[in-house]
Amino acid sequence: MSERTQVGIVGAGPAGLLLSHLLHREGIASVVFESRGRDHVQQRLRAGVLEQGTVDLLSQVGLGERMKRLGMPQTGIDFRFGGASHRIDFTAETGRTVMVYPQHEVVHDLIEARIAAGADLRFDTPVTRLAGLDGPAPSIEFDADGATRSMRCDFVIGCDGFHGICRSAIPPTVRKEYDRIYPFGWLGILAEVPPAAPDVTWGCHESGFAMLSFRSPTRSRLYLQCEPDDRPENWSDDRIWSALHERLDVADMPPLIEGRILQKSVTGMRSFLVEPMRHGSLFLAGDAAHIVPPTGAKGLNSAVADIQVLGRALADHYRKGSDRMLDSYSETCLRRMWLVQRFSAGLCTMVHSFPGQSDFIKRLQRADLEYMTGTAPGRLAFSDNFTGLPVEA
Amino acid sequence: MSERTQVGIVGAGPAGLLLSHLLHREGIASVVFESRGRDHVQQRLRAGVLEQGTVDLLSQVGLGERMKRLGMPQTGIDFRFGGASHRIDFTAETGRTVMVYPQHEVVHDLIEARIAAGADLRFDTPVTRLAGLDGPAPSIEFDADGATRSMRCDFVIGCDGFHGICRSAIPPTVRKEYDRIYPFGWLGILAEVPPAAPDVTWGCHESGFAMLSFRSPTRSRLYLQCEPDDRPENWSDDRIWSALHERLDVADMPPLIEGRILQKSVTGMRSFLVEPMRHGSLFLAGDAAHIVPPTGAKGLNSAVADIQVLGRALADHYRKGSDRMLDSYSETCLRRMWLVQRFSAGLCTMVHSFPGQSDFIKRLQRADLEYMTGTAPGRLAFSDNFTGLPVEA
Repeated sequence: MSERTQVGIVGAGPAGLLLSHLLHREGIASVVFESRGRDHVQQRLRAGVLEQGTVDLLSQVGLGERMKRLGMPQTGIDFRFGGASHRIDFTAETGRTVMVYPQHEVVHDLIEARIAAGADLRFDTPVTRLAGLDGPAPSIEFDADGATRSMRCDFVIGCDGFHGICRSAIPPTVRKEYDRIYPFGWLGILAEVPPAAPDVTWGCHESGFAMLSFRSPTRSRLYLQCEPDDRPENWSDDRIWSALHERLDVADMPPLIEGRILQKSVTGMRSFLVEPMRHGSLFLAGDAAHIVPPTGAKGLNSAVADIQVLGRALADHYRKGSDRMLDSYSETCLRRMWLVQRFSAGLCTMVHSFPGQSDFIKRLQRADLEYMTGTAPGRLAFSDNFTGLPVEA
Repeated sequence: MSERTQVGIVGAGPAGLLLSHLLHREGIASVVFESRGRDHVQQRLRAGVLEQGTVDLLSQVGLGERMKRLGMPQTGIDFRFGGASHRIDFTAETGRTVMVYPQHEVVHDLIEARIAAGADLRFDTPVTRLAGLDGPAPSIEFDADGATRSMRCDFVIGCDGFHGICRSAIPPTVRKEYDRIYPFGWLGILAEVPPAAPDVTWGCHESGFAMLSFRSPTRSRLYLQCEPDDRPENWSDDRIWSALHERLDVADMPPLIEGRILQKSVTGMRSFLVEPMRHGSLFLAGDAAHIVPPTGAKGLNSAVADIQVLGRALADHYRKGSDRMLDSYSETCLRRMWLVQRFSAGLCTMVHSFPGQSDFIKRLQRADLEYMTGTAPGRLAFSDNFTGLPVEA
């Protein structure tokens, strides 16, 4: 005999947890399945910058207390190129701020809130198959206690990330995937260094991109463009600091502060998107539907935007009997997401060094940086995108 | 015994003629050498859109009368894609207009003004060599009456276009050239058709780009993206109108009006730039120094911007004894020109169909068009560039 819930959610990342939280506030039942354990989920290092709209939403739904205490509001980015600092004050341009608050802290807050509310969160519970998505009785099949079991639900929400199984439940005949793999990766570094500068700092250097961000008053998060198949072992501490100095230090700003390196790892970089984001009673959200390169910090924020639309759409279904928003969910999210893909890919192309690119293209990259930082329309367009495009929900 | 002038100008296109005109107003003597005949120069079909700054400059220096009578001021561009019209009102965004006034009319006005002032314009006079550019006695060698003669001058100005000889007088050791050739061309069509729409209209269609502009109340100028090595003979009138309808007609606007085709020709498309734009007493301006793809209409306007800087710089030299502007001429023009290259190449990449491009890139192109036409920052950035970046002179 299978269990039953209203909304079955696959994946306990920020998308799945936030949806479960929003539904709970509307009195809608959900169950969240997660193949990994709670510790693993809470400790994954991911994005660190929340758009104004993400901050606002989390605050409105009772998840803002710790974020407001620990998060670090930002008003600008310091772009470094041509040996100088070029700051964009995106708050002056748009009136909006962003918040440095790591994704694992958001996940922490969400899990705490869900557990406090008695949510049905099932960690270490892999989903193996989705069934009946085209019909009146969809269900989620999952492994528990060594057996395969099943959960009947009205809707199945795929929040299981890029490598999850939900996306493949959309038949290939109606599924269209868009993909681009970049010829470089990022070496991510966690270091015991207090924030050296008030702003997140981007080094757009011809030897490669670098970024200085922070995680807390005592820890910095740094990134270095590296080979796509690079290995952390290839990067000694000396090599790391030397590359960071080369790419980030400029004459008019204090140099980078060094410190103990606590962790390093390599991430590949891709753009990906699937159309449509809905099939029958299955709805995809976040990384299950789209991946952006980390330049621009749009991964987590895009997931939150999807969930904001979906939460509203499911509330309309259950409370008003209206499926209008559910029916336009895919179109609504994709319209915004293509603009986000555009921004993320454009920024990625602007700040990285590409193998084999012509001198003409290198100079256009520099002109892009100069237009973006040195003109009012350029600063406005960056700021508008970086602080977050509107969500139609 | 060689002749002598203050400023020797190679090329009687708009750049050379305008400089000669500006110098004359400052009491500075010049001679203009042009390898082609006057009729050829006056009849070359070229660009048709003047930035606000170009219109203002021409008006200020007494060249505005006919332009104001025959030119057609524009306040917007009608971008067509996805089956609909998306107009950008660049005047609402920036307060600036542009003027549709063909380059050959600008050249006509300049030649009339120069001849009326008794200028030394030497048509059918090919320059064969520049000499002494590094020393105190530069000269221009030219063919006249079957003999090689020489003109001593203080400065030599290379306004002889992309295929001219002046650029190569900068030694390869100090000359850096940037080049990009696009994998398509434009079929330019002159047709006996009254302007069908108030705006210049761009068709950004997946089968290729098309444009509808105009030249007079009875003539339209149309363009179609074609193969880079295409031939006008490949394009029958039927094929031309059929492609124009496919790429330009949308449901919410009246269809294209057909008419007799008077002329058709194919142009290749490239981005090109040389650094520096000055060597010794040689200064390059306009197409001799830089080529942009015609998308964005920046060719003539960039030449005028160079000449505006150079005219001021030469006036400062002769009248104030200051070489400050001459010494920074190359840097001043290149700073602006790289932003213009960025805009022209970006727009060219956004609106054309490229062979072999991925579906992801096609959708990013569409997102670029949607951001540019559908958001306030996008419209502002386009309008700011299209109506003309400031000239530092």
